[in-house]
Amino acid sequence: MSLDAGALDALFREARTHNGWTDKPVTDEDLHAIFDLLKFGPTSANCSPARFVFVRSAEAKEKLKPALSGGNLEKTMTAPVTAIIAYDPKFYDQLPKLFPHADARAWFVSSEALAQETAFRNSSLQGAYFIIAARALGIDTGPMSGFDKAAVDAAFFAESGFKSNFLCNLGHGDPSKLFPRSPRFEFAEACQIL
Amino acid sequence: MSLDAGALDALFREARTHNGWTDKPVTDEDLHAIFDLLKFGPTSANCSPARFVFVRSAEAKEKLKPALSGGNLEKTMTAPVTAIIAYDPKFYDQLPKLFPHADARAWFVSSEALAQETAFRNSSLQGAYFIIAARALGIDTGPMSGFDKAAVDAAFFAESGFKSNFLCNLGHGDPSKLFPRSPRFEFAEACQIL
Repeated sequence: MSLDAGALDALFREARTHNGWTDKPVTDEDLHAIFDLLKFGPTSANCSPARFVFVRSAEAKEKLKPALSGGNLEKTMTAPVTAIIAYDPKFYDQLPKLFPHADARAWFVSSEALAQETAFRNSSLQGAYFIIAARALGIDTGPMSGFDKAAVDAAFFAESGFKSNFLCNLGHGDPSKLFPRSPRFEFAEACQIL
Repeated sequence: MSLDAGALDALFREARTHNGWTDKPVTDEDLHAIFDLLKFGPTSANCSPARFVFVRSAEAKEKLKPALSGGNLEKTMTAPVTAIIAYDPKFYDQLPKLFPHADARAWFVSSEALAQETAFRNSSLQGAYFIIAARALGIDTGPMSGFDKAAVDAAFFAESGFKSNFLCNLGHGDPSKLFPRSPRFEFAEACQIL
């Protein structure tokens, strides 16, 4: 059964990438609620490689600031929360817990290339679930990949060895700061039925 | 405003990766409806690199068959539709149309590594939007990355040069074929608030 039109609008058709924010905060409860949805999104062998750092305090925002590109600076520094969507390159060490029915860890320890591809693909999937989960809870998003990854990794992941994938602002969007929506492909430009 | 509990269940909390299918078909209209939602999901500079091939006919399924891993064979051959989620490595040639306000094409033609990373990250995001859009329309999914990518690319993308990212079965799931759900992380195992 399909969700109703209002829900499809909120998730996709009317949802926008926001550049300005109201002063309504994003609470700990909001962040837990987002995670408690996105964690159910499917990943390969349930590998769940994404790790999330929610940058909210002034101190943490200052730590992030030097890594931001000029065009992303103001909207990110003023966003109630900026999430760093990262991944654990050693995600496979969690597989005995996350995928107990097989020795899935062995599939990845034997191939660094497969592990890296799997971590990047699946943390990207989880980043998309994150965006949709936030929208499903009435929280607006602003994802960005224009930033200095090495600087973020040095500032936030020197100990853990995690790697940043992309950033995503969270808040309640100010519609007056939206850009006009860019065009999308028609079905036949991107799809084929065989 | 949050979606209602039934919608959150349908998208995330109760949605499952399916392994068996009823004989209810997936129609052209269903495939168009899925695309007409997922196309609105955000991508970097609206680059929209994902390309979708919907493998539905017996002939197309036979073409896909040799690329499937043993564990994915039966569920894929019996699925009403198997989507190949691919990407166009030369996605940047569409940017004058998709992102008309800047010369975004130039950002990517000058760096093969950036183009490749952008195509893979953003086609993965779009693959996740695809999964969620199908669920939002009451269609069940079964994503898989266990297949022979080179064989799929040779069979389906020899002319276009597209690259396969992952596969996703579509249909109406048979709940009797579900595996028990695997465990998920607690918030504190994957998240940090700074």
